[in-house]
Amino acid sequence: MKKHNFYAGPSILPKYAIEKSAEAVLNFSGSGLSILEISHRSKEFQAVMDEAQALFKELLEIPAGYEVLFLGGGASTQFYSVPMNLMKKKAAYLKTGNWANRAIAEAKLLGETDVVASSEDKNFTYVPKGYKVPTDADYFHITTNNTIYGTEIKEDLNVGIPMVADMSSDIFSRPVDVSKYAVIYGGAQKNLAPAGLTFIVVNPELLGKTDRSMPIMVDYRTHISKGSMYNTPPVLQVFTALMTMQWLKDLGGVPAIMERNIEKSDLLYNEIERNKLFVGTVAKEDRSRMNVCFVISDEYKDLDADFLALATQKGIVGIKGHRSVGGFRASLYNALPLESVQLLIETMQEFEASH
Amino acid sequence: MKKHNFYAGPSILPKYAIEKSAEAVLNFSGSGLSILEISHRSKEFQAVMDEAQALFKELLEIPAGYEVLFLGGGASTQFYSVPMNLMKKKAAYLKTGNWANRAIAEAKLLGETDVVASSEDKNFTYVPKGYKVPTDADYFHITTNNTIYGTEIKEDLNVGIPMVADMSSDIFSRPVDVSKYAVIYGGAQKNLAPAGLTFIVVNPELLGKTDRSMPIMVDYRTHISKGSMYNTPPVLQVFTALMTMQWLKDLGGVPAIMERNIEKSDLLYNEIERNKLFVGTVAKEDRSRMNVCFVISDEYKDLDADFLALATQKGIVGIKGHRSVGGFRASLYNALPLESVQLLIETMQEFEASH
Repeated sequence: MKKHNFYAGPSILPKYAIEKSAEAVLNFSGSGLSILEISHRSKEFQAVMDEAQALFKELLEIPAGYEVLFLGGGASTQFYSVPMNLMKKKAAYLKTGNWANRAIAEAKLLGETDVVASSEDKNFTYVPKGYKVPTDADYFHITTNNTIYGTEIKEDLNVGIPMVADMSSDIFSRPVDVSKYAVIYGGAQKNLAPAGLTFIVVNPELLGKTDRSMPIMVDYRTHISKGSMYNTPPVLQVFTALMTMQWLKDLGGVPAIMERNIEKSDLLYNEIERNKLFVGTVAKEDRSRMNVCFVISDEYKDLDADFLALATQKGIVGIKGHRSVGGFRASLYNALPLESVQLLIETMQEFEASH
Repeated sequence: MKKHNFYAGPSILPKYAIEKSAEAVLNFSGSGLSILEISHRSKEFQAVMDEAQALFKELLEIPAGYEVLFLGGGASTQFYSVPMNLMKKKAAYLKTGNWANRAIAEAKLLGETDVVASSEDKNFTYVPKGYKVPTDADYFHITTNNTIYGTEIKEDLNVGIPMVADMSSDIFSRPVDVSKYAVIYGGAQKNLAPAGLTFIVVNPELLGKTDRSMPIMVDYRTHISKGSMYNTPPVLQVFTALMTMQWLKDLGGVPAIMERNIEKSDLLYNEIERNKLFVGTVAKEDRSRMNVCFVISDEYKDLDADFLALATQKGIVGIKGHRSVGGFRASLYNALPLESVQLLIETMQEFEASH
């Protein structure tokens, strides 16, 4: 039975990227070797790294001067790397959920960390607004998409100081004005590649301003000076990322995928509003296009397991909500086809008809 | 043409592990999803993580109480993580090459770093002996195999304090008395898995003794408390590691592979000694079983490119020596078949006959 992959992450990747990766695992670029066992210094892989950096810049329209790094590890490594690289004295953070919390916790160990606003009062079901960002902070950190709670900052903010954004779960889902950011980083395992890769977009002009001693390996300048190959990068992940970006470019790039993402998420949010069995959990204006969170409405509670069973029967995978929210979460990343959303909606309608 | 993979890393993996990985990229564990897009929280992957940790412990005969972690990134991340976790005041290091140098540089940023001995005087072509390790050091750090220079510490040392070993390039190549080590770590991309995974074997009793503030993500206790899933691990790499370990167990485990490794490296070193065109670069007793370094002998110099061309014709890949040594380096990791070594030897003999 065909499976419909709604996992929050690691999550669905384009069929093209998966098939090309499977081919490369058996024979990479005609080398006669697997991508799993080829040197990162081989000319075949150097070409992949170069193309991946160039295409990343092209797709996100990154201004000249910015650098793109592909490193091992995940966003969690960046939670401390960002303040180590950028925090001179003070940084400002927006507290919008679990991942923001982790970033804040790491920053607090390194310097003054001003949490300018939080949505914890309502279990992170909205994005705070109307706060002031201190102009003497070295950067303002945001988590643009909150996978667990299903909120998203869908437009670039204007805060007067350079921003740092964890875009782990919505990179390439919409155009971004990169010039507003000192750093954009993320784990790649949502819209880009398998788990194990971190992307970092960085404005080098803002580096080297702290008087902090930091590990050589954590200093972004180390990696910039070596073309993202100071140490061995996760070779397969960089390759899959390149395949995903080729797929994205072929279908029209970031503006085109944004339209598809709006269409997919509108369809599902509209069904949640219409269907008497379900109710959304997030403030309407802050709803994520990537992770749609909903629960069974009060009159029909205790039906969670039944709906999950029906969805599973249909080949729908990964819609169980995070334990801190409950209910359901349908992740609609770039690679998720419209037909999967349609199937989920039909399943919700079938479930409604039988109750 | 069949390729013979002598790369120093990323490097050859067992055919079994590569084929199983290719299958899993298309359909993992009957899930109908790719291993590249399945949640690390899925029951299918949790089983892989559990088995991988258990089999790692079994194959290396790890004493009870020790923990095994599989994290993102590579050994370079551990160069600072080790002193952050273990260095109270002072650590001792053995300087045996480039990777040891990098580990020393990171440690120096964090505390008193006593380099007890170095082989830099002879371009790291031997392993220092007869040094004293200060008993008041918190640990003694060694790089058991030096990929670039082709030296190896092939037996566990006795130094009176807990050791820390970077075993990136010889893990699972010989039995190890783990009880002598506080930490054994390494990038997995030699004898275990594709690049992007770090393994860490740690004695938890030695953690939490420093009064250093360190990033939550760097603290080994964070990962131990979450079963190596505090953040998303590199899912594919952990899977491939499990396949490699299954292959190793099936062929008799670590003692059996050590015999094969001795046979392979003896064959090649004997040929280097016998063949008038070639000369080894490493002190005999310190020769690595994993990376065999040799150069063209003085009487026949300037033949490097010719030999490389002949080897390439035969399907031999990756034997160009590191730029800091020159000449040739044949990496004979666990997965390299005997026939590849035989082909290299035949090629050396053919080259000799034609000069």
